[in-house]
Amino acid sequence: MRDLLPPEAWRHADLGRRIVRSFELSGYELVVVPLFEFADVVERGLGGLESHEVLRFVEPESGAVVSLRPDMTPQVARLVATRLAALPSPARLCYQGSVLRRRQERARRHRQIPQAGIELIGCDGPDGDLEVLNVAVSALRASGLNDFVIDLGHGRIAAALVEPIPADRAREILDALEVKDETEVVRRAERAGLSTASLAALAELPGLHGGAEVWPKAERALGGTSAEPALRELKRLWEGARAAELAPSILVDLGETRDFAYYTGALFQIHAEGPGRPLGAGGRYDGLLDRFGAPRPAVGFAFGLDDVAWALERAGLGAAPPARLLLAPGTEALAPLLRNAGIAAAPAPSREVLDYARAWRYSHVLEALGGEFSLVESESQRREPLPAEPSALISTLSTRLRASAGGS
Amino acid sequence: MRDLLPPEAWRHADLGRRIVRSFELSGYELVVVPLFEFADVVERGLGGLESHEVLRFVEPESGAVVSLRPDMTPQVARLVATRLAALPSPARLCYQGSVLRRRQERARRHRQIPQAGIELIGCDGPDGDLEVLNVAVSALRASGLNDFVIDLGHGRIAAALVEPIPADRAREILDALEVKDETEVVRRAERAGLSTASLAALAELPGLHGGAEVWPKAERALGGTSAEPALRELKRLWEGARAAELAPSILVDLGETRDFAYYTGALFQIHAEGPGRPLGAGGRYDGLLDRFGAPRPAVGFAFGLDDVAWALERAGLGAAPPARLLLAPGTEALAPLLRNAGIAAAPAPSREVLDYARAWRYSHVLEALGGEFSLVESESQRREPLPAEPSALISTLSTRLRASAGGS
Repeated sequence: MRDLLPPEAWRHADLGRRIVRSFELSGYELVVVPLFEFADVVERGLGGLESHEVLRFVEPESGAVVSLRPDMTPQVARLVATRLAALPSPARLCYQGSVLRRRQERARRHRQIPQAGIELIGCDGPDGDLEVLNVAVSALRASGLNDFVIDLGHGRIAAALVEPIPADRAREILDALEVKDETEVVRRAERAGLSTASLAALAELPGLHGGAEVWPKAERALGGTSAEPALRELKRLWEGARAAELAPSILVDLGETRDFAYYTGALFQIHAEGPGRPLGAGGRYDGLLDRFGAPRPAVGFAFGLDDVAWALERAGLGAAPPARLLLAPGTEALAPLLRNAGIAAAPAPSREVLDYARAWRYSHVLEALGGEFSLVESESQRREPLPAEPSALISTLSTRLRASAGGS
Repeated sequence: MRDLLPPEAWRHADLGRRIVRSFELSGYELVVVPLFEFADVVERGLGGLESHEVLRFVEPESGAVVSLRPDMTPQVARLVATRLAALPSPARLCYQGSVLRRRQERARRHRQIPQAGIELIGCDGPDGDLEVLNVAVSALRASGLNDFVIDLGHGRIAAALVEPIPADRAREILDALEVKDETEVVRRAERAGLSTASLAALAELPGLHGGAEVWPKAERALGGTSAEPALRELKRLWEGARAAELAPSILVDLGETRDFAYYTGALFQIHAEGPGRPLGAGGRYDGLLDRFGAPRPAVGFAFGLDDVAWALERAGLGAAPPARLLLAPGTEALAPLLRNAGIAAAPAPSREVLDYARAWRYSHVLEALGGEFSLVESESQRREPLPAEPSALISTLSTRLRASAGGS
């Protein structure tokens, strides 16, 4: 858990606004769901592994167990299955807010993860998958990032291969696959008595990661196995994403398993230089709505806003906050006029005005000396005389400040 | 804890953006602080009563007690006293986020309260008080609301009168005052052995609430008591607020005590028709920074965004979301062009297009019949032919949709 100071906090807020605005332009309407609710709702659809990540507490009044949400998708599923159940399909909804996860392993602290995501509920098959991927990519481009990699997987490739064996044994195999430990995958699959064909296919999965060159190998490895239908579905999605030129690089990762157990079909991840984990992830979860009593297909995607901000910074694309004007003594009375014109302005302390301006990121200082106004650039200390007449003064200031903020 | 559905969620997000943007125009920079942290930080400065409202849990790994924040001011105070301690005063910071409070009494559920607020730290006296009140009022006007009441109090009026008696006895008297139970105030003050003059002054406080007519009565009741300096300070603030015409109605409430014990000076509340509690509140808290090792005066204000939204709705001033366009079969290919032009657009299902549009609040439907485009208003079903040439089509659509959304 960390603080965001200025101007980083502004950049994160601006990023969230751009992404949500882009979702809205694609027809996705905002919903807000609570930070915590009964464990039963928040954790419905989570697998055993992920439930270790959930922060829970007991309500002193009722004794009920309440969970801080580690993911908003089950909450949006609850909304669609209850208060929005009567509306025609598909539902297009988006959300923005923090999720909370306990860290195991190395990290000592809990994590508060600001997310923004979409859910397309009641839309079957590859059209829905491709729409969600398209909307996610548009939002990322709206944030300013154009250099990223899409990584596609499918939740029914590995899962179909281990289906014949008992769930706990199957889970052990998938866990080994998640960390791409091929030796352990084979050892556990043998111990569980998996058929030779499925075992051979499973052993190939960790290596089936890459571009177009993966398909012939994948078709050879999975042809005739229970994973073949999922492979065909994934290839159609990959072809659609390539045809739509969604990203400079679109990869497939057949060994991909995923954090949340509710995924039943296509899996998406978007990567870029910087954070060392995906900027966002999503996929198809056709079984989750059924757990809320309203069976329908669904697919979604969520960005981790901290990770997108990190990638933007790394690419030198962090947005610059608007120019800010510090009002030196004798100019404070102009504040209302300036703010009406959309210029951020605050009064200076009585001494060391320029030091104060630089310390608090005021791009400019407005001074009044001998009845004349002048504009001082905080960094260069370059001074420019300004018109005395208020409306000419404001309009000159607007032009100068807008130019200095790079037109933003 | 409740959900917000469309379009209410959009209205709340829009309101938050307007209020924060207004804070920024007054020079207040955004910071982000975590949803929970060690109880010691989050609860520093809270009084005994309020601490019953805090939701806490134990970190399984460390055994440390962690609190979900009931208020963001102590966290911003921590920031200013630590990572921002070297910067010159004053600090102007703003924040937006949810606070969480347990409900005692009637309400059964916890409350998640979305807030947006400001802190002016390192600025002494009535100038700072008036600035914060002014910034709060500007933000409220930016939300669209112009009809509201400012209620001013002072944290050192009742507190100064009960100062000579032991803290627990004093607290009992202030609790009775908080619910304006005059009889109980007098009974408890007598039992605690308060001096006759202070007792008489205390007994008057619940009745000293109103406009200009309160001052002569207040000066008579409090003249010569230990509350007189605070009364003079409050009168100066009231006069400043009146002179600046901050609200149609500016009242004083000398019997005002306050939820959070850290207030040491002026107290502000803003009321409007609707929610039945203040839209926002704040005040001066000169002692809080000292508790983080960096003594300096401070004053702040926070809006409850749900309550502001309620007041706006009640006044018929809820903002209308932008127009949305549903793309009937055959028009989907126009989606990228439309979104580039800032028009929210999504593909329709193949059947019952108009029913779908109305159910999901699409203001218009774009149809293609026999090679001709037309625009259908979802409610009236009024149909208008559109130009076939893409750029003319987009520009006509932009004009129509913007006009229908009331220019927003």
